[in-house]
Amino acid sequence: PAKLRGHVKRWDIHASEMSKNTLNPIRAIVDGMKLTPNPEKPMIALSIGDPTVFGNLPTDEKVLQAMKEAIDSQKYNGYAPSVGYQKSREAVANFYTRAGAPLEAKDVILTSGCSQAIELSISVLCNPGDNILVPCPGFSLYKTLAVSLGIHVKLYDLLPEKSWEADLQHLESLIDDKTTCLIVNNPSNPCGSVYSKEHLQNILSVASKHCLPILADEIYGDMVFPGCSFHSLAPLSRDVPILSCGGLAKRWLVPGWRVGWILIHDRGDVFGTEIREGLVKLSQRILGACTIVQGALESILNNTPQEFYQRAISFIKSNSEICYSALSTIPGLTPVMPSGAMYLMVGIDMKHFPEFKSDVEFTEQLVTEQSVFCLPATAFEYPNFFRIVVTVPEEMMVEACGRIRQFCVHHYRSQCHDSNEIDQ
Amino acid sequence: PAKLRGHVKRWDIHASEMSKNTLNPIRAIVDGMKLTPNPEKPMIALSIGDPTVFGNLPTDEKVLQAMKEAIDSQKYNGYAPSVGYQKSREAVANFYTRAGAPLEAKDVILTSGCSQAIELSISVLCNPGDNILVPCPGFSLYKTLAVSLGIHVKLYDLLPEKSWEADLQHLESLIDDKTTCLIVNNPSNPCGSVYSKEHLQNILSVASKHCLPILADEIYGDMVFPGCSFHSLAPLSRDVPILSCGGLAKRWLVPGWRVGWILIHDRGDVFGTEIREGLVKLSQRILGACTIVQGALESILNNTPQEFYQRAISFIKSNSEICYSALSTIPGLTPVMPSGAMYLMVGIDMKHFPEFKSDVEFTEQLVTEQSVFCLPATAFEYPNFFRIVVTVPEEMMVEACGRIRQFCVHHYRSQCHDSNEIDQ
Ligand SMILES: Cc1ncc(COP(=O)(O)O)c(C=O)c1O
Ligand SMILES: Cc1ncc(COP(=O)(O)O)c(C=O)c1O
Repeated sequence: PAKLRGHVKRWDIHASEMSKNTLNPIRAIVDGMKLTPNPEKPMIALSIGDPTVFGNLPTDEKVLQAMKEAIDSQKYNGYAPSVGYQKSREAVANFYTRAGAPLEAKDVILTSGCSQAIELSISVLCNPGDNILVPCPGFSLYKTLAVSLGIHVKLYDLLPEKSWEADLQHLESLIDDKTTCLIVNNPSNPCGSVYSKEHLQNILSVASKHCLPILADEIYGDMVFPGCSFHSLAPLSRDVPILSCGGLAKRWLVPGWRVGWILIHDRGDVFGTEIREGLVKLSQRILGACTIVQGALESILNNTPQEFYQRAISFIKSNSEICYSALSTIPGLTPVMPSGAMYLMVGIDMKHFPEFKSDVEFTEQLVTEQSVFCLPATAFEYPNFFRIVVTVPEEMMVEACGRIRQFCVHHYRSQCHDSNEIDQ
Repeated sequence: PAKLRGHVKRWDIHASEMSKNTLNPIRAIVDGMKLTPNPEKPMIALSIGDPTVFGNLPTDEKVLQAMKEAIDSQKYNGYAPSVGYQKSREAVANFYTRAGAPLEAKDVILTSGCSQAIELSISVLCNPGDNILVPCPGFSLYKTLAVSLGIHVKLYDLLPEKSWEADLQHLESLIDDKTTCLIVNNPSNPCGSVYSKEHLQNILSVASKHCLPILADEIYGDMVFPGCSFHSLAPLSRDVPILSCGGLAKRWLVPGWRVGWILIHDRGDVFGTEIREGLVKLSQRILGACTIVQGALESILNNTPQEFYQRAISFIKSNSEICYSALSTIPGLTPVMPSGAMYLMVGIDMKHFPEFKSDVEFTEQLVTEQSVFCLPATAFEYPNFFRIVVTVPEEMMVEACGRIRQFCVHHYRSQCHDSNEIDQ
């Protein structure tokens, strides 16, 4: 045995705790599912949060042109400052500046995608042992990043019956003196909800009362259906310091390009220089976004025609309505109509589907029988729901809803005697 | 005073320890210097490690063309896998595969610049409290990243009189049971040195004896002067597991594009699945490189003409020779001739420059009088040297060397009676 051989060194290399603690719940759940489609039906994936996969939502020609001009100029091959080119930061500042929440170039930090914006924001605000408040259901990256950094996560409930508004009482009850950041995601992944001004003001009141800075994940900002309006969080507050995270990924339909930003809103000078300098320092670790996209950014923001945005959001709205009305009449399902972003959540009345123990089993069997894959919302820590991505081509959406109907009709049990009832 | 007011909450937000511990020595030193050039002489910066700043070293036309084709194809706008497109990983694997160190797509992880490759490699191999061995003088990012992660850094000496070979005795003496990674940077920033096969084999022997994995920073790989050869570390070992970090930045002259890679060499299956999975997990934090550059990568690697590489390296060699021979004859300076990369280190015989307390003061005054800025090697934890970036236009190099001569001639004191001598 190894021991007897004395102190001859042996190879004994292990992955770090941090890498082991970087947990991706979506991967963990999906990798654990048996996803074998019915060979007689072509697969339809309603699970992928990438609006570009089916080719029906190309970015605008002007966006591509801006990129090619940036390349031809040969001005954007060298290193940019770690927080981005001054001119590009200025363009983002001008694009997002609002009365009551003005922005200058110095308030903008360009990052490698909104993901890095979130990473830097959490990293600068929180120490190991601190905790952050995260929406539930919510985008899984918040927890993935926090846990890997030794930061605790407290989930606050969103209420499906109130169009996914935050349960403010629950939220407030979670705050303690180790709470260093409140994450608000509006419009929401996975809910597709868009908060009213009043609800945002109520959230801000809680933050203000407890002196809690906010990380506002507004990557789906302005992606709201006609008739509804998007309110950015920052202009609604005069005191709460806010790091607003966004990027090109969703609205401009180029998630692979990895350009995001942090907008620093600090009217009360509460972040002061410390947080700004902290963000600059953290940005120097790996430097930020690709310079070609940075070079194109001003033109992308200023020259993309309004029709482009409108066309995309109209399509998403129309698809959401198709999906919502189709699923509304299916026994055992309760879809929640979204107002923006590109997702729709569907509740499963599990007692009517006694064959399945969970949303994971339900969606797994949906693949097996109908070759339709929806992400079980257990991936967002919200069991008994599944999420539909509504950016797929319309005919695919229609076909998928039809198959979901077949599936539910087949498995629905109306006379549901669950074990409790039998016991009684 | 605040205390008397009881428990009314006050804003009290501080930057995290991690952000405070993310220290950039180059910035710290340069920001502390008084850099006011002589108004009568135009500034010449020999300090910037970006070969593109003066426009004399453009990337190849084929590289730009590959980018524009990637944009026009519209195939590269969506999310790539977090470790990169399979096809792009395959292209890198094919480009770097060698007899004795074969690579497949699965052995390649694409990253946001070589910086992220280094970050992921350190993050996967080391836990807080561990230590890593880092070359001195060396690229400052290793320490910046390690310290911010709570990993200790032990500096091993490079020997200028032996063309910056590692002092292997010193290196070996630093190893203890908390040492989890040896960083080898070849060709070197800031030294411009290129190690012989024999020296690399000697380094590998030490690593093998102590079962120490190596992070080989080979971002300047193949950037060696005609007549000299570059040996990648991995093909020289049959047992030492190696993460080789590289990227497009230097050889293809596009540092802003932020594409790097980790090549996993693990012939003995020592890393096993654990390190590979750890790297995949870590890559999911912010996802990797811009998809447009990833889409262009295969073509960039395969279609860039040999003449492009040769032209760049010939220019760097010629500039290095101009610089080296000019500085060799300057009293009090000892330049070390490089064999690759794009840097040249110059020793300052401080006892002949009694006016200056350090390389920092020396280079500061060089700006004040001659408007020439060289980075003091204190930034690389190596006092009494300064670093020259040799990618600047030839006439600038000639002019700068002339001014450095003037400066040294003016300040050189040959009759140096230092205090020791006087005391005796
Ligand atoms: C709510 C939310 N925030 C952030 C991101 C990450 O955006 P990016 O791709 O720019 O990193 C996503 C991506 O799906 C998201 O849904
Ligand atoms: C030795 C060394 N490694 C890594 C890097 C970082 O490369 P990248 O710009 O691809 O992150 C540099 C950049 O100067 C370097 O000199």
